[in-house]
Amino acid sequence: MGGRGGGEENEEMNVSLKGLSRKLEEFAKERNWEQYHTPRNLLLAMVGEVGELSEIFQWRGEVAKGLPNWEESDKEHLGEELSDVLLYLIRLSDMCGIDLDEAVTKKIVKNAIKYPAPKGK
Amino acid sequence: MGGRGGGEENEEMNVSLKGLSRKLEEFAKERNWEQYHTPRNLLLAMVGEVGELSEIFQWRGEVAKGLPNWEESDKEHLGEELSDVLLYLIRLSDMCGIDLDEAVTKKIVKNAIKYPAPKGK
Amino acid sequence: MGGRGGGEENEEMNVSLKGLSRKLEEFAKERNWEQYHTPRNLLLAMVGEVGELSEIFQWRGEVAKGLPNWEESDKEHLGEELSDVLLYLIRLSDMCGIDLDEAVTKKIVKNAIKYPAPKGK
Amino acid sequence: MGGRGGGEENEEMNVSLKGLSRKLEEFAKERNWEQYHTPRNLLLAMVGEVGELSEIFQWRGEVAKGLPNWEESDKEHLGEELSDVLLYLIRLSDMCGIDLDEAVTKKIVKNAIKYPAPKGK
Repeated sequence: MGGRGGGEENEEMNVSLKGLSRKLEEFAKERNWEQYHTPRNLLLAMVGEVGELSEIFQWRGEVAKGLPNWEESDKEHLGEELSDVLLYLIRLSDMCGIDLDEAVTKKIVKNAIKYPAPKGK
Repeated sequence: MGGRGGGEENEEMNVSLKGLSRKLEEFAKERNWEQYHTPRNLLLAMVGEVGELSEIFQWRGEVAKGLPNWEESDKEHLGEELSDVLLYLIRLSDMCGIDLDEAVTKKIVKNAIKYPAPKGK
Repeated sequence: MGGRGGGEENEEMNVSLKGLSRKLEEFAKERNWEQYHTPRNLLLAMVGEVGELSEIFQWRGEVAKGLPNWEESDKEHLGEELSDVLLYLIRLSDMCGIDLDEAVTKKIVKNAIKYPAPKGK
Repeated sequence: MGGRGGGEENEEMNVSLKGLSRKLEEFAKERNWEQYHTPRNLLLAMVGEVGELSEIFQWRGEVAKGLPNWEESDKEHLGEELSDVLLYLIRLSDMCGIDLDEAVTKKIVKNAIKYPAPKGK
């Protein structure tokens, strides 16, 4: 994954859901983990990560946008937990046969209809 | 989103995290919702959606990959809840100043080091 | 539940975990719901209720202790969601064969050892 | 709970919500933790514990009632996580000014009305 070859960290990084999905599939195959990746196992794993994410915020009271006073190591940790939730979410979608690209695109359209923008914008 | 007829479902759909992030930002601005999008508000909103996702699975016992026996309407609902979790997760990352592209790319590398693939693959 | 017969709402109400456990068992038996009450089904049902609880708090920013400015109906709703989490938690414990009375008593002792009170108290 | 030497494990253990509530209040006071026990802090702490509970179940597939094949240490761990959820739930109720005894008693009545038992039982 290192070096230029991977291309994940060039200046125009643009991570796609499908790209992550493919990596996760490959990752699971190589480790023979596919047997564990049932929908409810993955859902519970995701709930576990949501719990870890919540723990980062639990004793802080409200926090300002951009987390101005956070230690760099706490932000690093936060990025990891956000990523874990994302990765299990994508893997869960895949194991359910849900095309997340399509689902999220539809959902945004649905939200725009449900909550129309005020006139003048 | 441009092009003919919405264009959300063309054959080369490739949804990126940054693209979703931009849409969510625009969506919030147009509705004057930015004031509500504090980190902990968004986190709790995401937990709410994880709850709705869990409700879909709660009384089913274990379910097979690909959800072979599910009604189309249940799969549609599932796609919506997965999307809601994804959208709040991305918005939460943005409001925390976390670059999710970078974070998830790093996390995959970290996971690969933590769980090396068995030899021979 | 009205009248003297129920006895749950007398002036000395003192609800016990075991009492709730017995009610839940009876409730499930009468409705032939025991078949659905597997550990992971109940866990996911509880996660669903935690989500509903979170939704009550999601757009409010930090809230003051005692919820001084909340509508009575919102507090009523909150009490219901707290109760739902509690009921699934107790039922989950039972279906796992965990004696929650014993477990929670032990946990409090363990916490007191882990976090000793400062001297002088 | 009285009796000799703590007495938490005598044969008539009957843990009540109010008893736990009092212990938690005392515990927080002695450690000067009341300042941290705001409603949303406690809610997020509870979500964190729900995550830890989910992690225990995440890779197991469906599990049988009573957890017949579980290691004693895993059941011990499970009892601790169930307890942690319970303790934060009770403390959250208290900090919200919700009488959980009353709320849960009402909720059981409401559930019985919503889901009437079939005739003949």
